[in-house]
Amino acid sequence: MDIRKVNINEKFKLFDAHWTPKLVGELNGQYVKLAKVKGEFVWHSHANEDEMFLIIKGQIRMEMRDNVEVLGPGEFIIIPRGVEHNPKTVDDQEVWLMLFEPKDTAHTGEVQHEKTVNDQQWI
Amino acid sequence: MDIRKVNINEKFKLFDAHWTPKLVGELNGQYVKLAKVKGEFVWHSHANEDEMFLIIKGQIRMEMRDNVEVLGPGEFIIIPRGVEHNPKTVDDQEVWLMLFEPKDTAHTGEVQHEKTVNDQQWI
Repeated sequence: MDIRKVNINEKFKLFDAHWTPKLVGELNGQYVKLAKVKGEFVWHSHANEDEMFLIIKGQIRMEMRDNVEVLGPGEFIIIPRGVEHNPKTVDDQEVWLMLFEPKDTAHTGEVQHEKTVNDQQWI
Repeated sequence: MDIRKVNINEKFKLFDAHWTPKLVGELNGQYVKLAKVKGEFVWHSHANEDEMFLIIKGQIRMEMRDNVEVLGPGEFIIIPRGVEHNPKTVDDQEVWLMLFEPKDTAHTGEVQHEKTVNDQQWI
């Protein structure tokens, strides 16, 4: 089967729901995901997985217990395993994110929450 | 230690050399790398690693034995392990790339070439 490129913006046109990451790539046991988010997520951590957030559009305020980083397009942050974090969008604007994390990462880590999506879909 | 964001464009200002990937992140046994490339690389494959190329600036023509994909900014391609590939820049313009691959990935896979960089550096 031919190997095809993925256009990130085209993929973002395929869904609207917030806080529901979609799968767009897989490599070395990791998933590449896209998510649209707005508002506040939930404090959580992942015991065994590091998680990378790359901002495509908008601004996100990544709260951690020790510091806060505000990220815009072309910026990323890697949250190491075990580190509690809570992403919030800035000024209540929609944010487009690209995520990298192991295939077995639970959406909200140890926490089950109304925002938890346990069955993430390919687009 | 506080966890800090990375601004991709700021990192690209820190080096000029072509075909010498720099390390900018690490997660789950994978490296995130940035590279500036121009011209043609070399046909190679990686026996045990999948490799992701995300284009930040410019256009790249990814040759594989079965097909060719031309990628621009905001597009990525994942080259599965074992698949021979050869990236070339379009119109001999400089291209900025973000790469994701396992920490133990050899730059040119099984091939040793004058363009091979065996000791990649953090920036």
